[in-house]
Amino acid sequence: MPDLVAARDVEALNEWLNQAGTLEIAEELARLDPAERAIPFRLLAKDRALEVFEALDPLHQQELLEGLREAGVGQLFEDMDPDDRARLVDEMPAKVAKRLLAGLSPHERALTATLLGYPENSAGRVMSPEVVNLRANQTVGDALARLRRIGTSAETIYALPVTDESRRLVGALGLRDLVLADPDQRIGDLMDEEVYSAHVDQDQEEVARLIQEADLLALPIVDAEGRLVGIVTVDDAMQILEEEQTEDVARAGGAEPLAHPYLSVSVLGLARSRVVWLLVLIVAATLTVNVLNIFEATLANVVALALFIPLVIGTGGNAGSQSATTVTRALAVGELRNTDVVLVVLREARVGLLLGAMLAAVALIPVSLFVGQQIATIVSLTLLAVCTLATLVGSLLPLLARRLGFDPAVMSAPFISTLVDATGLVVYFLIAKAILGI
Amino acid sequence: MPDLVAARDVEALNEWLNQAGTLEIAEELARLDPAERAIPFRLLAKDRALEVFEALDPLHQQELLEGLREAGVGQLFEDMDPDDRARLVDEMPAKVAKRLLAGLSPHERALTATLLGYPENSAGRVMSPEVVNLRANQTVGDALARLRRIGTSAETIYALPVTDESRRLVGALGLRDLVLADPDQRIGDLMDEEVYSAHVDQDQEEVARLIQEADLLALPIVDAEGRLVGIVTVDDAMQILEEEQTEDVARAGGAEPLAHPYLSVSVLGLARSRVVWLLVLIVAATLTVNVLNIFEATLANVVALALFIPLVIGTGGNAGSQSATTVTRALAVGELRNTDVVLVVLREARVGLLLGAMLAAVALIPVSLFVGQQIATIVSLTLLAVCTLATLVGSLLPLLARRLGFDPAVMSAPFISTLVDATGLVVYFLIAKAILGI
Repeated sequence: MPDLVAARDVEALNEWLNQAGTLEIAEELARLDPAERAIPFRLLAKDRALEVFEALDPLHQQELLEGLREAGVGQLFEDMDPDDRARLVDEMPAKVAKRLLAGLSPHERALTATLLGYPENSAGRVMSPEVVNLRANQTVGDALARLRRIGTSAETIYALPVTDESRRLVGALGLRDLVLADPDQRIGDLMDEEVYSAHVDQDQEEVARLIQEADLLALPIVDAEGRLVGIVTVDDAMQILEEEQTEDVARAGGAEPLAHPYLSVSVLGLARSRVVWLLVLIVAATLTVNVLNIFEATLANVVALALFIPLVIGTGGNAGSQSATTVTRALAVGELRNTDVVLVVLREARVGLLLGAMLAAVALIPVSLFVGQQIATIVSLTLLAVCTLATLVGSLLPLLARRLGFDPAVMSAPFISTLVDATGLVVYFLIAKAILGI
Repeated sequence: MPDLVAARDVEALNEWLNQAGTLEIAEELARLDPAERAIPFRLLAKDRALEVFEALDPLHQQELLEGLREAGVGQLFEDMDPDDRARLVDEMPAKVAKRLLAGLSPHERALTATLLGYPENSAGRVMSPEVVNLRANQTVGDALARLRRIGTSAETIYALPVTDESRRLVGALGLRDLVLADPDQRIGDLMDEEVYSAHVDQDQEEVARLIQEADLLALPIVDAEGRLVGIVTVDDAMQILEEEQTEDVARAGGAEPLAHPYLSVSVLGLARSRVVWLLVLIVAATLTVNVLNIFEATLANVVALALFIPLVIGTGGNAGSQSATTVTRALAVGELRNTDVVLVVLREARVGLLLGAMLAAVALIPVSLFVGQQIATIVSLTLLAVCTLATLVGSLLPLLARRLGFDPAVMSAPFISTLVDATGLVVYFLIAKAILGI
């Protein structure tokens, strides 16, 4: 498509758009230069345009709105789901947001304002306020008639919360059970009384995980009084989990998460996301300079010791990064709890000892042939100690971070490597001094 | 709960089970000793027991089946969804699987056998063969009547594939549109003709990503002739994505993915998942020993050079791990394509240069005060070079891996660090020799 746009070949572009799928169009739009996106977008039929628009990332939505100028923008904005609209407004410059919000119908504006009133990352921000509820004392026939009347505007009618007279959540029913039931049955007799729900202030990630673990299509959201105020759907849950995941992965690699898709972040933006951690780590690495400085006399005496510095600290870093990623992931998917610290640390200490012993055994003979038996003993003992230490630290830090209320992913592989580097060097030189008697 | 089980306090246990949610019970069961899980499980009512069973991980399902012995096992196995049952059979020892499959009703056995016939990780393995299809020439009223007749056994009736006379997929319709439509309308006029589908041999991860990106509740699966053979639901998609994610995270940390939940893997199993990579990395690290050995004369001459070895290689490792994780993630979520190699490498080279220049500037003054100006120049120039090099290598390797058909996550942070270590040292000593004139 990019070449068709560049050539302004409207006919060929129209042909391409007609045979392409919605997702495909959205993907190609995202890869175009922001200034050019309006060209193919204007060629889409109105319904199709809304579908494509909804498939775009908030950043690309905003850029497209700017590219379209006035024509059609207001309608596009009006037709969005309130939760998607709230997400988009979050990304926009305040001035643009204000102008667009002012153009909305009073009903849609009120819905959006409600969502934007909830704290960032809360369930309230991502829920759809247009939720259809059933009443426990309705019959199935009445409920279906009501759905036919009002069901088109709701985000989902597949998972139907059941409420009492004061809108308090008392149960839930799937549309499937409703359709398959006898029209005279009472909703209250049919509904599932074990109903999952979340509080409007609850963290989005918790809500998304609950939807995933309980295999739900949607989760009712209630306020402090237990009254139904909205619903979060499974597609929102998947998006939240993917974003959380991207954040965790970035942190695990020692970088700040990117706010936008990779190709939409400038070189300067990429550098900014990484420079803070690199600086923190380089300052932490001055610890290793100090350690080596303290042991400079030993080093000058036996230069062969320097040969194994990268190997020793590299192995520590690797072992630490292995246990840190394993434990961080187990925490993220809920396999471990905050209280499992002792259990995990005991397990990891044994894993570290085992791995260290294996590496020490493997290193012993080649190193003795290469530089002599004393150095080989030093290297092997250091590997054993460093491996155990690194595995222990790597598992302990994410657990501690979680207990203190931080994201365990901040205890990244680079962070743990750097921390273990200095300690590993101290161990190495202490063992060397003891064995060499210097 | 664990203490109630240990105390065999059936009364208190019953009370706890009555007030606990399904997920909560499953979670507590998973944390019990395998031998003890049957005790609380037997206390559950039949329907509840099936729900709890379905919420368990396949490993825990299998252990529970063994713990329950004959009583009730057959019924539990018969009542499972065919796709969940196929996943469970995959985990079981062949002998147990054979015995259990023999106990199934002919219908359920045939369904399971079909799924198990598809290749591992294919859509066929996870789809539900019990899919309800509509006919394009049916009316809405007929379709609803048919759903009431056969809809209870299907895994989902929310996303309804529409087929022609020879079961070829021609469209799709949501249950919501069906319920809200006029009973006399023809399905063919109502259905969405832009229908997403996947081939039965297609990779599970692709199928799951399509469900996520297109916000689907279920995706029809077709055979080579385009005939409908099953359907994959959104909850299966979420599970597939979570498993893929766990694999990627493990690989990024330099370990083999665990086959089971963390707490169910023995210390030996944990060590096994990590030892191969540690050995590979330690062998690769002997490169650094060789490099240092070559430059031993330089090192013996200026021992101060040794002080900065960990800092220089550590920074290279960190910069490489940052760009590797960023690029790997962008590939995983589909923001980058295989063909973007040149584009990405050019961007990352500029990011690396920028970061390297900043670090070099930061290091220059403290190092000159600490050890002198010549060494400071060497360290700064090395940081600039190593940072650029590491960022470049870190972005290039995942892209190359993907182009060659491997999982980009294999190009893990530890792997890239180790690779960059040796090169970084060469750069360091070459710069040192040039500047010191030795």
